[in-house]
Amino acid sequence: MSTPQAETIQPANGKLGVMVVGMGSVATTLIAGVEAVRKGLAEPIGSLTQMGTIRLGKRTDNRTPLIKDFVPLASLDDIEFAGWEIFPEDMYEAASHAAVLDKDHLRTIKPFLESIKPMPAVFDQHYVKRLNGTHVKTGKSKCDLAQQVRADIQAFRQKVDRVVMIWTGSTEIFMEPTAVHQTIASFEKGLVDNDPGIAPSQIYAYAALKEGIPFANGAPNLTVDLPCMIELSRQTGAPICGKDFKTGQTFIKTVLAPAFKSRMLGLSGWYSTNILGNRDGEVLDDPESFKTKEESKLGVLDYILQPELHPALYKDIYHKVRINYYPPRGDNKEGWDNIDIFGWLGYPMQIKVDFLCRDSILAAPLALDLVLFLDLAQRTPGLKHRGIQEWLSFYFKSPQTAEGLYPEHDLFIQQMKLKNTLRHIQGEQLITHLGLEYYD
Amino acid sequence: MSTPQAETIQPANGKLGVMVVGMGSVATTLIAGVEAVRKGLAEPIGSLTQMGTIRLGKRTDNRTPLIKDFVPLASLDDIEFAGWEIFPEDMYEAASHAAVLDKDHLRTIKPFLESIKPMPAVFDQHYVKRLNGTHVKTGKSKCDLAQQVRADIQAFRQKVDRVVMIWTGSTEIFMEPTAVHQTIASFEKGLVDNDPGIAPSQIYAYAALKEGIPFANGAPNLTVDLPCMIELSRQTGAPICGKDFKTGQTFIKTVLAPAFKSRMLGLSGWYSTNILGNRDGEVLDDPESFKTKEESKLGVLDYILQPELHPALYKDIYHKVRINYYPPRGDNKEGWDNIDIFGWLGYPMQIKVDFLCRDSILAAPLALDLVLFLDLAQRTPGLKHRGIQEWLSFYFKSPQTAEGLYPEHDLFIQQMKLKNTLRHIQGEQLITHLGLEYYD
Amino acid sequence: MSTPQAETIQPANGKLGVMVVGMGSVATTLIAGVEAVRKGLAEPIGSLTQMGTIRLGKRTDNRTPLIKDFVPLASLDDIEFAGWEIFPEDMYEAASHAAVLDKDHLRTIKPFLESIKPMPAVFDQHYVKRLNGTHVKTGKSKCDLAQQVRADIQAFRQKVDRVVMIWTGSTEIFMEPTAVHQTIASFEKGLVDNDPGIAPSQIYAYAALKEGIPFANGAPNLTVDLPCMIELSRQTGAPICGKDFKTGQTFIKTVLAPAFKSRMLGLSGWYSTNILGNRDGEVLDDPESFKTKEESKLGVLDYILQPELHPALYKDIYHKVRINYYPPRGDNKEGWDNIDIFGWLGYPMQIKVDFLCRDSILAAPLALDLVLFLDLAQRTPGLKHRGIQEWLSFYFKSPQTAEGLYPEHDLFIQQMKLKNTLRHIQGEQLITHLGLEYYD
Amino acid sequence: MSTPQAETIQPANGKLGVMVVGMGSVATTLIAGVEAVRKGLAEPIGSLTQMGTIRLGKRTDNRTPLIKDFVPLASLDDIEFAGWEIFPEDMYEAASHAAVLDKDHLRTIKPFLESIKPMPAVFDQHYVKRLNGTHVKTGKSKCDLAQQVRADIQAFRQKVDRVVMIWTGSTEIFMEPTAVHQTIASFEKGLVDNDPGIAPSQIYAYAALKEGIPFANGAPNLTVDLPCMIELSRQTGAPICGKDFKTGQTFIKTVLAPAFKSRMLGLSGWYSTNILGNRDGEVLDDPESFKTKEESKLGVLDYILQPELHPALYKDIYHKVRINYYPPRGDNKEGWDNIDIFGWLGYPMQIKVDFLCRDSILAAPLALDLVLFLDLAQRTPGLKHRGIQEWLSFYFKSPQTAEGLYPEHDLFIQQMKLKNTLRHIQGEQLITHLGLEYYD
Ligand SMILES: NC(=O)c1ccc[n+]([C@@H]2O[C@H](COP(=O)([O-])OP(=O)(O)OC[C@H]3O[C@@H](n4cnc5c(N)ncnc54)[C@H](O)[C@@H]3O)[C@@H](O)[C@H]2O)c1
Ligand SMILES: NC(=O)c1ccc[n+]([C@@H]2O[C@H](COP(=O)([O-])OP(=O)(O)OC[C@H]3O[C@@H](n4cnc5c(N)ncnc54)[C@H](O)[C@@H]3O)[C@@H](O)[C@H]2O)c1
Ligand SMILES: NC(=O)c1ccc[n+]([C@@H]2O[C@H](COP(=O)([O-])OP(=O)(O)OC[C@H]3O[C@@H](n4cnc5c(N)ncnc54)[C@H](O)[C@@H]3O)[C@@H](O)[C@H]2O)c1
Ligand SMILES: NC(=O)c1ccc[n+]([C@@H]2O[C@H](COP(=O)([O-])OP(=O)(O)OC[C@H]3O[C@@H](n4cnc5c(N)ncnc54)[C@H](O)[C@@H]3O)[C@@H](O)[C@H]2O)c1
Ligand code: NA
Ligand code: NA
Repeated sequence: MSTPQAETIQPANGKLGVMVVGMGSVATTLIAGVEAVRKGLAEPIGSLTQMGTIRLGKRTDNRTPLIKDFVPLASLDDIEFAGWEIFPEDMYEAASHAAVLDKDHLRTIKPFLESIKPMPAVFDQHYVKRLNGTHVKTGKSKCDLAQQVRADIQAFRQKVDRVVMIWTGSTEIFMEPTAVHQTIASFEKGLVDNDPGIAPSQIYAYAALKEGIPFANGAPNLTVDLPCMIELSRQTGAPICGKDFKTGQTFIKTVLAPAFKSRMLGLSGWYSTNILGNRDGEVLDDPESFKTKEESKLGVLDYILQPELHPALYKDIYHKVRINYYPPRGDNKEGWDNIDIFGWLGYPMQIKVDFLCRDSILAAPLALDLVLFLDLAQRTPGLKHRGIQEWLSFYFKSPQTAEGLYPEHDLFIQQMKLKNTLRHIQGEQLITHLGLEYYD
Repeated sequence: MSTPQAETIQPANGKLGVMVVGMGSVATTLIAGVEAVRKGLAEPIGSLTQMGTIRLGKRTDNRTPLIKDFVPLASLDDIEFAGWEIFPEDMYEAASHAAVLDKDHLRTIKPFLESIKPMPAVFDQHYVKRLNGTHVKTGKSKCDLAQQVRADIQAFRQKVDRVVMIWTGSTEIFMEPTAVHQTIASFEKGLVDNDPGIAPSQIYAYAALKEGIPFANGAPNLTVDLPCMIELSRQTGAPICGKDFKTGQTFIKTVLAPAFKSRMLGLSGWYSTNILGNRDGEVLDDPESFKTKEESKLGVLDYILQPELHPALYKDIYHKVRINYYPPRGDNKEGWDNIDIFGWLGYPMQIKVDFLCRDSILAAPLALDLVLFLDLAQRTPGLKHRGIQEWLSFYFKSPQTAEGLYPEHDLFIQQMKLKNTLRHIQGEQLITHLGLEYYD
Repeated sequence: MSTPQAETIQPANGKLGVMVVGMGSVATTLIAGVEAVRKGLAEPIGSLTQMGTIRLGKRTDNRTPLIKDFVPLASLDDIEFAGWEIFPEDMYEAASHAAVLDKDHLRTIKPFLESIKPMPAVFDQHYVKRLNGTHVKTGKSKCDLAQQVRADIQAFRQKVDRVVMIWTGSTEIFMEPTAVHQTIASFEKGLVDNDPGIAPSQIYAYAALKEGIPFANGAPNLTVDLPCMIELSRQTGAPICGKDFKTGQTFIKTVLAPAFKSRMLGLSGWYSTNILGNRDGEVLDDPESFKTKEESKLGVLDYILQPELHPALYKDIYHKVRINYYPPRGDNKEGWDNIDIFGWLGYPMQIKVDFLCRDSILAAPLALDLVLFLDLAQRTPGLKHRGIQEWLSFYFKSPQTAEGLYPEHDLFIQQMKLKNTLRHIQGEQLITHLGLEYYD
Repeated sequence: MSTPQAETIQPANGKLGVMVVGMGSVATTLIAGVEAVRKGLAEPIGSLTQMGTIRLGKRTDNRTPLIKDFVPLASLDDIEFAGWEIFPEDMYEAASHAAVLDKDHLRTIKPFLESIKPMPAVFDQHYVKRLNGTHVKTGKSKCDLAQQVRADIQAFRQKVDRVVMIWTGSTEIFMEPTAVHQTIASFEKGLVDNDPGIAPSQIYAYAALKEGIPFANGAPNLTVDLPCMIELSRQTGAPICGKDFKTGQTFIKTVLAPAFKSRMLGLSGWYSTNILGNRDGEVLDDPESFKTKEESKLGVLDYILQPELHPALYKDIYHKVRINYYPPRGDNKEGWDNIDIFGWLGYPMQIKVDFLCRDSILAAPLALDLVLFLDLAQRTPGLKHRGIQEWLSFYFKSPQTAEGLYPEHDLFIQQMKLKNTLRHIQGEQLITHLGLEYYD
């Protein structure tokens, strides 16, 4: 196998500004966590960029550096946070309210958290029915609002060297692409005309990409998975990627489904239900927001199992996903799955999985990895102008791909894609797991 | 990436004789199932060789043949079964007794099953305390018994073109390699001297390899994972591979552990318990046989998680495996796992998995795949004389590897290894999941 | 404690006719089962009347007769079945279709099952949206239909000595009592006027009670829990009782909730979800029928836990019940419960219960007990004219009680009530579990 | 039913001294909790004496006082704690070490907890293999040690008005009664002779009863369930009762088993496993201590289900109980149960229960109730000299009963027994749940 040339990646010098849209549970857990790690109070567990290693060369070579020593990532010490939120609370109040982290944990970094106050948000209740924001921008048009966001970015840029934006805002209602989303031109006209197809998240994304800033979407709403945004991303060299953090139940689903498929075990039904009691649960209690989430969650099985190739095993799977707002649990989501499989000669078997997880604890390190990897992508010539970074599929319930290309949902294929991409840009041999040479 | 040359694999002409050692639940489920499939009564679900596909070329190429159309495997119609068992029942009686398959299923193929009667076995209760065999060979020495097995093989060979042997016998007591296992010579001396280090399973394996016949081990006992057997395997070109079918709980464990590791989620404890009520459960109720199984089951986590690389995440995992003989369930094993993980900043989470499986339904297709792939390996010049077939790790709780090489337990790495080996021997491009070309 | 006088209960001589409304899963499982038991092919497990015992006197007395030897119940051999159904299939076809009992089980009693054919039903799709009946009565008015049912009863009565009716029909849509249900007179006028408040189940119930026949309701619909029906029941001496068989999840709920309360453990939330794939599941997939079921299921916790007495423990419980139509499972319903409790100083704990049950297997013996006990009640002077038989609360998700009296949902209180009623009518000492005398 | 005469119970004036043997997790949770409740910081949830109510008269009477207002119990404000422990830590250190209660909870009552320091214990490692005590009494003989404990009691009695003793010490090894336990005389001789049949717990119990002090046993060891102790208890009017707090899995087991029996559902197997990581778990990791616990846990099913009365349902149940020391969880024990039941015609069903409990949170309120009720018993003429208080069976895995009398394990029978005993001593009508009068 020939070895690719290493890329000339720009070093990660100076400050990295992280702009967070929606400063709720995930965002405060991210921000408080990064600070706690910087102060040596805790470890960035769950983050591949901070704790992950990568095997290089042969199994017997013993070359397994940390990823952050292998590719030039921004250091946590160089991150500065800013963001927008529809409520005016500072990060200490917001994190206390979110009740993800223990009071003891928050107390130790209280001054830092209090120092971060959100900028007023672009918001419209039409797109998130259950919330009623008070700390919002007003403007003559969506275009005007986009300009205000761009101004916020430009101001922040004075203080930092590079900027990345991430949406950790609420799930907006279900929407489908329309004519307004086809080109940059049509979208910009839509901004002026207040086109109802343009949701707040799109306004932020547009502003970011226009400013040449990479954008990640932690929620399932229609934001950068639009022709106009892909065009803009490639034009300004501002990388984009999939949407909706793959955390609890879907994370497990994209682990188990590939396992069944690897063994050619059939699947007759998969029933998934969730109970959660945080603000996200409240928002998703609205049928329109739930539909957005549901679509994102339901898609994964078909792509992994390929019923068209394996009708005897995977045709007519009964797949159901439920989300229940259940306040007693707060952010401690519980996902229960019942899976009906069948094996040799068709005999049925069952698997039950109960995941007592913590939503934002799972999501925060993904948010961190995404901003660091997007920043890396922008500094890597071979990635910067490709637009969609498919190698970041690993993080998403809805990976984004080139037109006409099916998405990879299998967590292990996604991981291989991510790691071989890192090997590729650093000129290392890709791993195939063939390994016949050990038996010569 | 350069493409390897396709191998000149010998075609799978004529009959393939499958010799089964131990004709209990797994074996009868295999044999009855193969016949049911041949008669069009059922599908060989769970078998990669029969139902699996392999992707070739680019994602957009749409080249995904069935594995059995891609590499020349023996056809089910060409398989003939024979075997040894310590009880004299024919396969119909044995399958009825095992109570894995429905009576209706067995009835339809009764004459076929009745036609297969076991040969007397090599057996010694010292190695399987809970069983008391009646249908056993007697001989002056272990060497004599080995000769008798070789004679059985030679006789069977008259009727078929190629032969493969698989151990689906009971789990023998825990043993460790001794001097007798170091070389072919020392082992052959041990046979003559009735060395207590030589268990019945080793006698069968020796006879097989000596006759140039590939050997697979479905149980966890010490059988071909011995220097003398590796030497013999390479000498006679009779492929060998790992041991102990990876089916229920360990299958799931080697799926979930890689998932946690991929996301750098820490693990503090993993408690696994099983309840099962078949004869295998009865045998494993004996502490000496259980120890053999336990060692096989406990090993997987450390290799997957690499605590030496990730001490903050995986050092001092509390891993416990229990097997409980529980007659109410028969072959319908249930495996319950509690998994204690931790994420961002160390916050703990839990996962419970309850697998209501069917032991032999899961194992039978693995046995089928192994005999077909071992037969393929022997017909493939680039594999035949390599001895250990590491690419078959996919099927085992204890994969066998070259000396000094750690085993791969991650199911997805194993799958990649298997599939890229098939691509390799057929001269197809290996898959790396890089895929940057789609974004040119 | 004074001992009550034994009642002069009429003996259970002659045939008992059981008229079943709705001959689906529960009904066919009941009918096939009674026949299998009569033929000695199986045991009537789950039936208190057939297998239960009752302790009499002191713990040291060793007097524990079978209930059926203690009170004069009709013998299974004396039961004759008849019924109504909106589809014309005979009981063999219907039972095969329901797929609750094994084919082998059904085959042995095929002629008997084929001999029972349903009479055309009173049906109106307005009340059960998902079904489209073909085997239905037509009539000028609801009054006319009631007369037809009465005629059916009278005809059947020619062949048997006593008759009992039980509704095992589908769950009708949610309805609330209106003016038409206030008196016998208003109801009879409503029949003539085709009042929409009168559902088919009410027509059957009216016909039964008018004929002096006891009536039990296995479904949650509004049927005899109406002032007019109570009046009629007392008038004609035709006992009635609660509604909606208490089988899977609610059965367990009324067992666990009393346990928490007995220990003064608090409850913050209870999330219950069900997956089932039979015709009942299909009917309940309709929101209007589901509402009827939901109301019946949600009620139990409050009555058991008495939040008004124990606000610190049981105020603001978050109680949610979901039913999901999930075809892969057929009649094998699965109920999953998550229960959030709290103890000493408020510390939270959780319980998960997964009940892999069989809906109709649980319900059939309840149906049997109810018809036998209702027949007993009618032959017992002290019970016959009381109308509601509160001592049968044990069998229902919605027990029926005297006006102004809260229902008892605690399974163990219900059991005590039932058994002490039997002791009472036979003149035996009631049991209080005091037992100080053993320590004199 | 005639109403019994109310007893002349002595009032609960003055201080109640509670002497605790073994000041580990349960004891510190009890002591800290009582103080937290006294200070208004938390509620005594899980305690029947503090939060429970009792229904009096008819259902329509609305007479449901708090138990503590119905019978004269000592007030929490009047409790003084003292105790013995083999480690010298004060209650703050011990509670911190036990890690049951949050640091915040402990901090607020730190001075109080620090003020309670254990007296040196009577201990011998022979009886608890895994512990190595440093804070222990030395003495010439077991008799001498008993005298030292009596002296400790006498000293404490100077400060309080009444005393009760409770064993919350570790589980001692499995022992059976011998000749030494037959009479007070033989036991007292054994004390002088250092009879090995006399464990430390018996020395404490003897000292207590000799001093006329009621004694409760929270652990499963052989302590007061001995002829000599029963004799002594009746002689000195010092009430005793059963052993081994009924908290997690057994609590649930004695709730579900009566439910199955009430419905005549058969049981083929019950597999129970526990994982826990506190000091109790460590002690129970020793096979001899585990045997004591196992015997206590296994007994309950047979007494509840009465296989001799119901062989078709409950003969040959496969009942297995496992306890696994699993440090990741600390005091947060998890009990997982698999239950195999069968219903109508023998069809099998399964129930899984997963109880994520907190061991000491469940046990502490039982300890509190027991000391308060034993004190009440001693002040109640009709109970004081009866010895065994069977009405306290409610709290124990191994209730103690009069010779020849089977124990009641059904939680609901136990509750009825307890509550009717309270009604009885206060001259209230016993409750039978007959209730026919509401339908007159
Ligand atoms: N594991 C996870 O937590 C997880 C996984 C996948 C996806 N997500 C998604 O991530 C998002 C954030 O989750 P969360 O738990 O932090 O939710 P959250 O409700 O705690 O936080 C979202 C915040 O966004 C704010 N917001 C809404 N619209 C806004 C706007 N237009 N501008 C600025 N702020 C806005 C809300 O006020 C809220 O504070 C949700 O969409 C959720 O569905 C979370
Ligand atoms: N899912 C699975 O079923 C699974 C998974 C992994 C490993 N295994 C292993 O596969 C083996 C077979 O499992 P099973 O369920 O069929 O067990 P089984 O007990 O039904 O069958 C084993 C048979 O081997 C026979 N036997 C024992 N020693 C023999 C000897 N020396 N020669 C010939 N026959 C002998 C026994 O009499 C028995 O009939 C066991 O070792 C088991 O641990 C099974
Ligand atoms: N464990 C249980 O099975 C259980 C528990 C509680 C309540 N229930 C209730 O018992 C009822 C029966 O359950 P099932 O599982 O047998 O359902 P099912 O759907 O198998 O049977 C109901 C039958 O009633 C028939 N029907 C509907 N309306 C009718 C009418 N007006 N006249 C005559 N027939 C009519 C239907 O065609 C159907 O065949 C349902 O209402 C269900 O909710 C069942
Ligand atoms: N839910 C529950 O917690 C529960 C339920 C049933 C029974 N129990 C039993 O209650 C007892 C206490 O449980 P725990 O969790 O508090 O255990 P623990 O180990 O925390 O406390 C027991 C204490 O007793 C001390 N001890 C042992 N022998 C002693 C002696 N002879 N004299 C004085 N002290 C002695 C030990 O040093 C230890 O500190 C155990 O026997 C346990 O099995 C507990
Ligand atoms: Na649900
Ligand atoms: Na176990």
